[in-house]
Amino acid sequence: MSTQSRPVAVINDGSFYVGPPLARHLASRGFDLVIGDPADGLLQELQNLGAKAVGVQGVRNLTEEQATQLSNSAMENFGRIDSAVMFSGRVITGSIVNSTREDLDKLYLGCVVAPYNFLKAMLPIMTQQQSGQVLIITSATAARPTPGAGLYSSMRAGATMMAKNAATEMSRHNVQVNSVGTNFMDFPEFLRASGANDPERRKHIESQVPLGRLGTVDEFASFCMPFLDGTSTFVTGQFVSFSGGWS
Amino acid sequence: MSTQSRPVAVINDGSFYVGPPLARHLASRGFDLVIGDPADGLLQELQNLGAKAVGVQGVRNLTEEQATQLSNSAMENFGRIDSAVMFSGRVITGSIVNSTREDLDKLYLGCVVAPYNFLKAMLPIMTQQQSGQVLIITSATAARPTPGAGLYSSMRAGATMMAKNAATEMSRHNVQVNSVGTNFMDFPEFLRASGANDPERRKHIESQVPLGRLGTVDEFASFCMPFLDGTSTFVTGQFVSFSGGWS
Repeated sequence: MSTQSRPVAVINDGSFYVGPPLARHLASRGFDLVIGDPADGLLQELQNLGAKAVGVQGVRNLTEEQATQLSNSAMENFGRIDSAVMFSGRVITGSIVNSTREDLDKLYLGCVVAPYNFLKAMLPIMTQQQSGQVLIITSATAARPTPGAGLYSSMRAGATMMAKNAATEMSRHNVQVNSVGTNFMDFPEFLRASGANDPERRKHIESQVPLGRLGTVDEFASFCMPFLDGTSTFVTGQFVSFSGGWS
Repeated sequence: MSTQSRPVAVINDGSFYVGPPLARHLASRGFDLVIGDPADGLLQELQNLGAKAVGVQGVRNLTEEQATQLSNSAMENFGRIDSAVMFSGRVITGSIVNSTREDLDKLYLGCVVAPYNFLKAMLPIMTQQQSGQVLIITSATAARPTPGAGLYSSMRAGATMMAKNAATEMSRHNVQVNSVGTNFMDFPEFLRASGANDPERRKHIESQVPLGRLGTVDEFASFCMPFLDGTSTFVTGQFVSFSGGWS
């Protein structure tokens, strides 16, 4: 185990969505990085930005073991964790009445257990350090009932409250825990799932967003920085909806 | 299956807490009742109030099968369900950091799956009827981070959001779903668990409540009536904290 002066961030998933832009923003701010399942070329790109960047393969489900692999990698390679950010989520749509217990269990695993495992892996290290920032990325559906995705919204609300509770627990250790929830983001998986690759369908989806457009993952990564980059550590236990005014 | 003009309520648990007073209040308002695991003498007491009252034994865990036993009993005995109210909850205290996945799973079962099973049993019948009221009793901890009970608070928040989502789904069927969350209630299990049977300890606990006292299960049952008795069906998707101003 080595210690060093550059700050260190853990990103659970560098393969898609906001993972790669979060990594780029943090590398530009002087962070070294541990990244789960980095996209092709991402580690090289981060090294070109002056960061040491280490990948950990096969951790996308954030099981207890996988979350520990991420924290172990950070401690072995860098000896500390200043910031840790995770996103996960299993989306299952449909009404509550027509859902099955299996649906609920899958959502519990993807939306509640994954952030739980991540918190459990990161917080003891930050407690030891008496410093650290954790950002749990949930969903804007945590903040309002969501027709057609009621169980999903409910499990997201549970995870958001878990982040708030963790914040309360950790405040005396000078560790901050916050959460941000998205919806209507412009990335390939959302476009495909929502049908927004079709221009007419995209117009209809954008009309559901008060600000009238989809959000980009790059502006989202930029928004996340104050919760991760060590510049604003007086904020904890907060949830912010990043959804164009939808929630 | 018979039909009749007296309204019918289902109470999942008549053995303790707010179960018996809810039954008494509803019987006094002219309801016939299906009651899970009724306390000794409760059915007779309700009959003395002019109600038909049927007990269903062995449903305290609200498994899918047990929830269905309650709805089946209502349909077989009375042919309809106008109101349905449930409470459940597994309390596990301690910090998130020191918790185990087993703790989280138990809380998920007790605080999320139980109301889910209840909703799934009651809502299709109310959809068929195009009328009905459901009240999900959760916890005041659903509404604020709760030091020492973080996972519990989180799962309660998930259940509260599930009630809100169910409300959104059911509004076009003229079915109302609300939730109320309690804390600091004066009943034997809380007194024992909190140590409030000791007068000094009770004073300390009461000092945590803005209103300076514990709540009674009878006033709580009274408060629940407008969400159940058919007099105020313009309210849905709401959560009310019944906790003396604590949340």
